[in-house]
Amino acid sequence: MRDLPLAKVYQLVEPGPVVLLTTAPNGPPNVMTMSWHMMVEFEPPLIACVVSNRNFSFAALRTSRECVIALPATRLAREVVQIGNCSGRDVAKFEKFRLTPLPAAHVAPPLIKECFANLECRVTNTRLVNTYNLFILEVLKAWIDPAQKHRRTIHHHGYGRFAVDGPMIKLASKMR
Amino acid sequence: MRDLPLAKVYQLVEPGPVVLLTTAPNGPPNVMTMSWHMMVEFEPPLIACVVSNRNFSFAALRTSRECVIALPATRLAREVVQIGNCSGRDVAKFEKFRLTPLPAAHVAPPLIKECFANLECRVTNTRLVNTYNLFILEVLKAWIDPAQKHRRTIHHHGYGRFAVDGPMIKLASKMR
Repeated sequence: MRDLPLAKVYQLVEPGPVVLLTTAPNGPPNVMTMSWHMMVEFEPPLIACVVSNRNFSFAALRTSRECVIALPATRLAREVVQIGNCSGRDVAKFEKFRLTPLPAAHVAPPLIKECFANLECRVTNTRLVNTYNLFILEVLKAWIDPAQKHRRTIHHHGYGRFAVDGPMIKLASKMR
Repeated sequence: MRDLPLAKVYQLVEPGPVVLLTTAPNGPPNVMTMSWHMMVEFEPPLIACVVSNRNFSFAALRTSRECVIALPATRLAREVVQIGNCSGRDVAKFEKFRLTPLPAAHVAPPLIKECFANLECRVTNTRLVNTYNLFILEVLKAWIDPAQKHRRTIHHHGYGRFAVDGPMIKLASKMR
């Protein structure tokens, strides 16, 4: 994993990929699948996400206030769905899905070696947690794996249907 | 436009497409381009979005508390980018980009005929507007255009780069 400038984080999150979220609730790390997330600010990068209070990760995120958002490429799609199909209450998911935890620099939850990018996050605002399970995260450090060239992601359409990233087009945008 | 069940709205928003957002600030309607949005709840569908206070649409959204989120397919990609390149302060965008406003059922801002889906929204929570320009919207009614068969969307990667939806895959997910 190599350092990714924080200014580029939005380019990973804004397109709406299905991601993994790791937590480390006083013990072995856990991981869940997530696609309710969005950018809130470029720099420092802020990300909003919804983690249901029915998810095992909810308590870990609320109490530890730390997580890692990991970006899986399409080749991991089957594992990503299976990770979403079970709970950390019942399953040691890192072992079961042969994910390799790597130590993060600033937070306790691990990076995932098999993912092409990892974002170390701290919970920075909880005002909408009780109402909507909505957390605001600040990205403290971002990592990219230069060895992974295939970075197409998947996008959830419901009931097992996912759109894979297709061709990249270039248009005359003035947007960052 | 035909009625779309509210239970299906998340299938449009969750994949992270670039969308259009219409407002009607005491006069002709305006439209902006947006991709900082996410689902917050299935039913009634709640959507979080960030509309920068530098955008002309910000004041309209905050005061009128109404908008329409319209989903453009790939064939509109060039117009979508150009809509994002200019401001409603200077340009009558519906005319300039030959968009056809259609009356909504529950809100003043119009639907966009050329978009394959339209979501009539009311602002339901503003607690994070001052801090993050983050609005929580409730979708009151959703519309789908059955005549538009090509519903591939675009996903923003920054600086004019967009991923077009590629192939749809099916995986054994237990998720809704």
